[in-house]
Amino acid sequence: MFSYYQLSVPVYARALQQLAHLLDKGADFALSKKVSDETMLGLRLAPDMLPLVKQVQIACDNAKFCVARLSDTTAPKHDDNEKTFAELKKRIDETISFINSVPESAFANAAGKTIVLPFMPDKPMSAEFYLLSFLTPNFYFHLTTAYDLLRSNGVEIGKADYIGEV
Amino acid sequence: MFSYYQLSVPVYARALQQLAHLLDKGADFALSKKVSDETMLGLRLAPDMLPLVKQVQIACDNAKFCVARLSDTTAPKHDDNEKTFAELKKRIDETISFINSVPESAFANAAGKTIVLPFMPDKPMSAEFYLLSFLTPNFYFHLTTAYDLLRSNGVEIGKADYIGEV
Repeated sequence: MFSYYQLSVPVYARALQQLAHLLDKGADFALSKKVSDETMLGLRLAPDMLPLVKQVQIACDNAKFCVARLSDTTAPKHDDNEKTFAELKKRIDETISFINSVPESAFANAAGKTIVLPFMPDKPMSAEFYLLSFLTPNFYFHLTTAYDLLRSNGVEIGKADYIGEV
Repeated sequence: MFSYYQLSVPVYARALQQLAHLLDKGADFALSKKVSDETMLGLRLAPDMLPLVKQVQIACDNAKFCVARLSDTTAPKHDDNEKTFAELKKRIDETISFINSVPESAFANAAGKTIVLPFMPDKPMSAEFYLLSFLTPNFYFHLTTAYDLLRSNGVEIGKADYIGEV
């Protein structure tokens, strides 16, 4: 049996570490090809899809707000102004530090919660639905799209860079 | 608290329904643009990434083998020979039917299992690691890459088509 804590904090922290690793590979690629970080962070799969920088910001926000909402803690604020790989990695680090700082005991009331997102005020969700069928699929969506953006633009990464050590 | 069953069968069934819905949108697009299913199923984000057809096949296999391994049941065999959207949707249907056919009681011994994948014989995993940090991230990787492939090639889909009804 798994707790809300087990399904969020360690799982998201691990996946975000891999995202930081993917960004390292992106930064190395940019350096070797003399491409600016701004160009890399602005890459999109389609003109009306969000660029790489937003994919990373949203993945971080998914993790921090999920943990904050389920544990009644307050997520750190971020201004969405990252312009370099280094700044995005700092954001990931801060996100991991925050979620790792929340103790398992803070999730004691998670199961009974109703989650109402500020941008979907008329769609209350049970904590279970929110975690399993809304937040987690969204989180991996943005991680994978960041991967797909880097990979489709020539960065040499493979599935193992996304999954991490087994 | 969540069981192995709760974290796999209903979660994967829901996500696969959304994948079938994304394929419907892809099929409509192909029809309206007079593009063959073969062309659509062969789309890739990079020459050395797997095409759409494989992304869907692997997402299905992730779900069926995860459920089979954790529950000591036998997954149905598929020959990986789908050539049309209709055939891929049939595969998704069969996958959902199989996982939904496995009762929660069949997962009674899941927690103590060691999972050894045939293609990674030297990397035994605990059932917990396999489910949370290997299989589930992989499953969403292939779902999202299928989405990214359709979306970046002009199919009009949005995040709601991936997440489903809230």
